Amino acid sequence: MKKTPIAALFAVCATVPFANAGEGMYTPEQLPKIEKELRQAGLAVDPAMLSSLTAFPMGAIVDLAGCTGSFVSDQGLVVTNHHCARGSVQFNSSAENNYLEEGFLAKTPAQEIPAAPGSYVYVTTDFSDVTNQVLDGTANLTGKDRFDAIERNRKSLIAECEMDEGHRCEVPAFFGGKEYKLIKQLEIRDVRIAYSPADSIGRYGGDIDNWMWPRHTGDFAFYRAYVGPDGKPADFSEDNVPYQPPHVLKVSAAPLQEGDFVMVAGYPGSTNRYARQTQVSYVFDWLYPNYIDLVENWIGIIESSAPQGSDARVKYESYLASLNNFLKNTKGQISGAKRVGLVERRAERQQAMSEWLAKTPKYANLQQSIERLDELREQKAQLSKQQFWFVQAKRSQLLSTAQTLYKFAVEQEKPDAEREFGYQDRDRTQREQQMMRLDRRFDATVDKAVWMAFIEMYLSRPQEERVAAFDNALGLTSSNALSLPQKLEDFYRQTQLMDVDQRLALLKASKETFDDSSDPFVKLAVALYDTEKAIEDQDKALDGEILALQKDYMEAVIAWQASQGTIAYPDANSTLRVTYGSVLGGSPKDGLIYEAFTRLEGISQKDMGSAPFNAPQKQLDLIQQKAYGPYADPVLGTVPVNFLTDLDSTGGNSGSATLNANAELVGLLFDGTIESVNSDWDFDPRTTRSIHVDSRYMLWIMEYVDGAQNLLEEMDIVGKPE
Amino acid sequence: MKKTPIAALFAVCATVPFANAGEGMYTPEQLPKIEKELRQAGLAVDPAMLSSLTAFPMGAIVDLAGCTGSFVSDQGLVVTNHHCARGSVQFNSSAENNYLEEGFLAKTPAQEIPAAPGSYVYVTTDFSDVTNQVLDGTANLTGKDRFDAIERNRKSLIAECEMDEGHRCEVPAFFGGKEYKLIKQLEIRDVRIAYSPADSIGRYGGDIDNWMWPRHTGDFAFYRAYVGPDGKPADFSEDNVPYQPPHVLKVSAAPLQEGDFVMVAGYPGSTNRYARQTQVSYVFDWLYPNYIDLVENWIGIIESSAPQGSDARVKYESYLASLNNFLKNTKGQISGAKRVGLVERRAERQQAMSEWLAKTPKYANLQQSIERLDELREQKAQLSKQQFWFVQAKRSQLLSTAQTLYKFAVEQEKPDAEREFGYQDRDRTQREQQMMRLDRRFDATVDKAVWMAFIEMYLSRPQEERVAAFDNALGLTSSNALSLPQKLEDFYRQTQLMDVDQRLALLKASKETFDDSSDPFVKLAVALYDTEKAIEDQDKALDGEILALQKDYMEAVIAWQASQGTIAYPDANSTLRVTYGSVLGGSPKDGLIYEAFTRLEGISQKDMGSAPFNAPQKQLDLIQQKAYGPYADPVLGTVPVNFLTDLDSTGGNSGSATLNANAELVGLLFDGTIESVNSDWDFDPRTTRSIHVDSRYMLWIMEYVDGAQNLLEEMDIVGKPE
Repeated sequence: MKKTPIAALFAVCATVPFANAGEGMYTPEQLPKIEKELRQAGLAVDPAMLSSLTAFPMGAIVDLAGCTGSFVSDQGLVVTNHHCARGSVQFNSSAENNYLEEGFLAKTPAQEIPAAPGSYVYVTTDFSDVTNQVLDGTANLTGKDRFDAIERNRKSLIAECEMDEGHRCEVPAFFGGKEYKLIKQLEIRDVRIAYSPADSIGRYGGDIDNWMWPRHTGDFAFYRAYVGPDGKPADFSEDNVPYQPPHVLKVSAAPLQEGDFVMVAGYPGSTNRYARQTQVSYVFDWLYPNYIDLVENWIGIIESSAPQGSDARVKYESYLASLNNFLKNTKGQISGAKRVGLVERRAERQQAMSEWLAKTPKYANLQQSIERLDELREQKAQLSKQQFWFVQAKRSQLLSTAQTLYKFAVEQEKPDAEREFGYQDRDRTQREQQMMRLDRRFDATVDKAVWMAFIEMYLSRPQEERVAAFDNALGLTSSNALSLPQKLEDFYRQTQLMDVDQRLALLKASKETFDDSSDPFVKLAVALYDTEKAIEDQDKALDGEILALQKDYMEAVIAWQASQGTIAYPDANSTLRVTYGSVLGGSPKDGLIYEAFTRLEGISQKDMGSAPFNAPQKQLDLIQQKAYGPYADPVLGTVPVNFLTDLDSTGGNSGSATLNANAELVGLLFDGTIESVNSDWDFDPRTTRSIHVDSRYMLWIMEYVDGAQNLLEEMDIVGKPE
Repeated sequence: MKKTPIAALFAVCATVPFANAGEGMYTPEQLPKIEKELRQAGLAVDPAMLSSLTAFPMGAIVDLAGCTGSFVSDQGLVVTNHHCARGSVQFNSSAENNYLEEGFLAKTPAQEIPAAPGSYVYVTTDFSDVTNQVLDGTANLTGKDRFDAIERNRKSLIAECEMDEGHRCEVPAFFGGKEYKLIKQLEIRDVRIAYSPADSIGRYGGDIDNWMWPRHTGDFAFYRAYVGPDGKPADFSEDNVPYQPPHVLKVSAAPLQEGDFVMVAGYPGSTNRYARQTQVSYVFDWLYPNYIDLVENWIGIIESSAPQGSDARVKYESYLASLNNFLKNTKGQISGAKRVGLVERRAERQQAMSEWLAKTPKYANLQQSIERLDELREQKAQLSKQQFWFVQAKRSQLLSTAQTLYKFAVEQEKPDAEREFGYQDRDRTQREQQMMRLDRRFDATVDKAVWMAFIEMYLSRPQEERVAAFDNALGLTSSNALSLPQKLEDFYRQTQLMDVDQRLALLKASKETFDDSSDPFVKLAVALYDTEKAIEDQDKALDGEILALQKDYMEAVIAWQASQGTIAYPDANSTLRVTYGSVLGGSPKDGLIYEAFTRLEGISQKDMGSAPFNAPQKQLDLIQQKAYGPYADPVLGTVPVNFLTDLDSTGGNSGSATLNANAELVGLLFDGTIESVNSDWDFDPRTTRSIHVDSRYMLWIMEYVDGAQNLLEEMDIVGKPE
C-alpha cells in the first residue's frame, strides 16, 4: 500500500470524524487526550512520551516519502517494507547481479549500494503549530485572494525554515485548513541498501495476494542512512559515515498473541473520513465507475500495444501493476461502500450533526457555512465532471512532460517566493530526477496508442465538455487534411522530448525558448497554457472559499464529536500519525473467518515452485525440518509469518513500525485486507484489518535463511527465549 | 457438480482404496460391514435398513442420469438441485415467460410443465450380483477376445432384463471388473417441473461462487414423476397420473449443528482412488497441463468467433461455462495434488502394499499381475499421448455427428445383441434426442474456427502423431491447390448436417447411403472409419488384458486394506452409493477458516443488485425484518443457508439427499469446495468438504419468498418448532 504514481494521478477531493474502537489516525500531540483509552487498551509506556515527534519512540520513525521506516540501530539502519525499497533494488539489478531474484545482503557496510536516485530518509527535527501565521491577514479575504494569501504565508514559513541547510520543511493543513503545522525534517540524501531479501520472500504472493488474507509475505528490507563526516546531509561519497539517529527501536522476539496491544506510527497519505455526502456520491456514483471503465480500457491498450515479451512491456510492467492495483482497490472500495451502506450512513450522520447544531446555540451559526460548503462541493463536482475527459485527453507522458517544463520556465520569471508549489528552486532536484526517470517507463508506440484512445474518448463527448484551445491546437474541429493518427504520428516523429538531455536542458530554458519552439508537444503545451491557468485560477477561487468554510465545518464536527464523547482526529495528510488497537483476526464475510496469524507451514502449502509462490528451497527445507530456532510462538507452535490487527491505516503507512505495549518493534505494517480499503471513507471496525509482517519471521529469515548475522548483531533484539 | 458433456469428453482412465474418516463411497450392500462405525458416528436407524436399494430409505433415492433426486411425497414429487433441473426450466422459458429469471411454481399439478426432452426419473426396482454370468466363459480368454466376451455377456443380461417393458437395465463393473451387478430401474419418462426458484435464488452466486465457500445458493428444485393410468411408464399425456413411489423421505426442519451425523445417498459419477502411480503421473504431469493450455485456447477461439452479444454467443454460453468450469476444476485438482503430495503419497502406498504382498504368501502371486498391469497402463498412456492431437483435430461438432451417424448405420447391419453399446435399438431414442439438441448449441462460424484451430495444432505435431487417413482425406500432406481455410469453408457450405431433418433421416439410413454420400463431413467420417475401428480394437485388446489383471490388483488392494482394518469401497461408477460423516467446517489453508454454516444475512452482505448476486427484493426485505419464522437455528440465531460436511462426493452426486441420523432429509448436496476436487484421486480428510443447501433454507424460501404452500402441504415435514 505504498502510494503509487497512479494513485496520485487519481487523487480525489478530500476531507468528518466518527471515532470507533481501532479507528483513529491521531497526531502524536493528540495522544495525551486519549491517555486513559491508551492505558486501558494496554499501553505500558507513558502516553506522554508518544506525543513528541522528536522524542522516543516517535523520533525513531522516519518519513521515506510515500513509505515509512524506523531506525533499528545506532548506525543509521532503517527497516521498512521490501516493496518500499524494491525500486532501489531493481535500479541496481542487472542480468549478472539479479538482486530482485537473489536478494541482496551487504556483509559489511562497505558492500552497501546506493538506493535509486530520489531516495531520501527524512528525520523530523522540529514541529510547531503555525496556524496563526498561515492565516495571518486572511480574515477578510475570500476566493482566490484567500487561497493565494495562505499559499504565500506557507511558502514564506518554509523558506525561512529551509535556511537551515540540509533540511526540508512542510506546512501541511490539518482538519482541512483549520490548523497548520510546520514540520522540519533533516533530509538525508545518501541512502544505501543494506539488505533486501529475494522477491521469492519479500514479494511472496505478489500481485495475486495483494490486499489478500491469508498472507505470507516477508515484506521487509533494510536501508542505511549516511551523512557527511560532519554529521550533516551530503551527496553520496565514500567518505560519508552512518548517520547516528537520536532514537532507535528495540526489536522484539517475544511472544505476541491475538488480543495483544499494538500501535503503529507512520505516515498515512490521505483519507476522506469527513467528506460530505455530496462528495461521497460524486466519487462512488460517478467518478469511481468512470475510472473503472477508463482503467480497464487503458490496461487493454497498453497490453495490446506492448505485447507480452516485448521490451515495451518490460517498461510498462510496473505501470500495469499500478493500474491493476488501482482497479482492485477501487472495486474493493465500491463493494465496501455497498457493504457498509456508505452513502446512507453518511446521510444519517450529517442529519444527526445537523440536528445537534440546530439545538446548540453556540454552534448553530455554523450550519450556514456548512450549507454553503455543500453548494461549493457540488460546484466542484460538476466542474470535475465537465473537465474529466479533457483531463484524460492529455494522457500522453510527453505532453505532461512538456507542460511541466513550460510551467517551470514560466514560474522562473517570478521571484522564487511567488512561484507555485512544485516549481520553486527547492523543487529543481526532484524535477531533474523526474525528467531522468521517464525513459525507464516510456515507449513511444504505447504512449501514442494510449493518447490516441483517450483523445477519441474525449471526441465522443458532448460539445460543452470540449476545450477550444485543445481542439484548435490539434485541429480537432476542422476537417483537416491529416487524420488524427497521422497527426499524432507527426508529434512523435518530430519531438525531441524523448531525449533526456533535451528535457534536462529545457528545465533550464527560458520561457521564450518554449514560445519559439517548433517541437509539437512543446507547442501544444504553450497553446494550452492560458486555458490551464484559467482552470487552475477557477479552482483556486473555489478552494479559497472552501478553505474558509471547511474551518467552520471542522469546528462543528469536532464540537459535535466531543459532545458524543469522541475525539476527532484529522484526515491523513502524509504526516506522522499513531493508531492503536490489537492483534485481531476477523470475519470479513458470512461463513469465513480470518485467523489472526499465518504460519511458516502456510508457505509450503501455498508454494507452486513458480513466481509469485516460489519460496527458496532452503526455506522450504527448513520448514520441513521444523527448524524454528527461538522464534516459534508458544501458542502457534511454529514461527508466525504475518498477522492482522484492527489498526487504522492507509497508503503511505507501508513500512510503518508496529509497536507492542513497550514500544518495541513487533512487526511492520505492509497492507490492508481488500475489505478494508473502503475505510478511507468510513472506518468499519467489523471488517477493517491491517496486515503486518511479524518481527519473528523477519528475524528467522535473517538468521536461518539469509544469514544476515551482521545486521542481527547490530540490532537490540529483546524478548528472545533462551 | 453435475456431470457435464465437457467433463464427459475428458473422461480419464480410471480406478486404489485408502479409507479414512469421512472417506468412502460405499455400495449399500457394504453398509452392514461398517455397521459398528455407522452407529459410532451417530446413525440412529438400523444400518441393515440401508443395505437394500429397494427398501427405505434407499428406495426413495432416484437416478436422474447425471444427477440424483429423492421422492419427498407419495404423489411422485422429486427434489433435486436447481442446477439439475435448470436445463428443463430454460427449455420452457421464453421472453414472455422467463422462468429462469422469475422462477416457476405450479400452484396445482395441472399447471406443471414437461421437463426438457431426455429427462428421466429412474427408480431402482431390482439389484443382483451377476459377476459369474458376466465372466462366464472368459477364464481362458485374453485381449480383445476377453473384452468382447464380457461385453456380449453384459448385453445379453441387459436384453433379458429389459424384456420387462418400461425398464432400463445396466450391468456396471465394480472394482474395475472384479464384480458386476445387474441393476434394473423403472424408466419414468413423463417428468414435469413442479417448482423451480428464480436464478436469483437457485443460482445465487453463479459461476463466480462455483466450487467456492462461503456459499449462499438455493440450489433446489422439484420435479414430479408421472406414469400412465396403469401405473406404468408412459409418454407425456394429460391422462397420466402422478407416480406413487414405494418410499418417501421426510423433510427435517429440526436443528442441525456442526458435528451432527449426516449421510448422503446418491449417484457419484467416477473417481480414480485406486489409480496406479503410472496413471497419476500421466494425468497430472502430462494430460491436465495439456488440457489447460488447450481449453484456454479453445475458450479464446469461441469468445472471439462468437462476440459478446451475438446470437452465436448465446448458443455457446453453456459450452463456455462448462469449459470454464472444467478449467477451474482441473487447476484446482493440480494445486490439490501438489498440496497433498499426490504422486509421492501414491508411490508410498504402492510401496507399502507391495511389501505386504511380498510377505503374505496367499497373495504374493498377485504382484506379478500388478507389474504387468503397470506395463499395460504405461502402454495406454503412451497411446493416449500419441493420439491426443488427432483426437483434438476432430473437434468439429459436425464431424463427430457424422461419425456417430455412420457408426450407427454400420452397427445396424449386425444383429442387435452384437452391436456396440450405445448403438443398439435401446439407444435409438437417446440418439434422436442428441441429433435434435445440436442446433441449440451450434454455430457454423464458431465450429469452423474451433476446428481450424485444432487442426492447426495437430499439424504442428511430429510425424509419428499424424494419422494417414485424416491427412489424406483432408489433403493435409500434398500441396493442394486449396488452402485449409478454403477447404473447411467448403465443408460448411456443402454439408447438409446442419439440417435437423437430415440428421434424423441419416439415423435411419443404410450404410450404403453413407458410402455414396457427397456430404463432405459424411465422406470424412467414412474415410476415417477403418482407422477409428483399428484404434478401438487396439484399445479393446489392451482393455481386455487390463480387465483380467485389474481383478487381481483389486483383490490385492482389498486384502491389503483389510489387513489394515479398513474396508475397500469401489470407485464411483454412477451407481448408488452412501457416504457418511458429519457437518463440519474446516481450514482449507493456513490462516483461513470455513465456518460450517452460512446465514441469511450473508445474502444481504453479498448482494450487488446484479446477477449473480441479485437476491429478490422481497427476500432482502424479509432478511432485514428478521422474518425467520420457525426456521431459525437456535445456535446461529438465524436461518442457515448452506453447510459444509466432510462427506465423500463427486460429480453426479448433485441433488443427492443429505440425511440425518434418522434418515430424514436435512439438505441437498450440490457442490464441493475447490480444495476438494482433488479428492477424486486421493481423499484428503483435512481439506475435503461437500457443500449442501440446508432444508430449513429451502422450506423458508418456499413458505416466505415463493409461497409454495401447496408443495409444503404435500411433504411430511418433521421437527418443526411450534
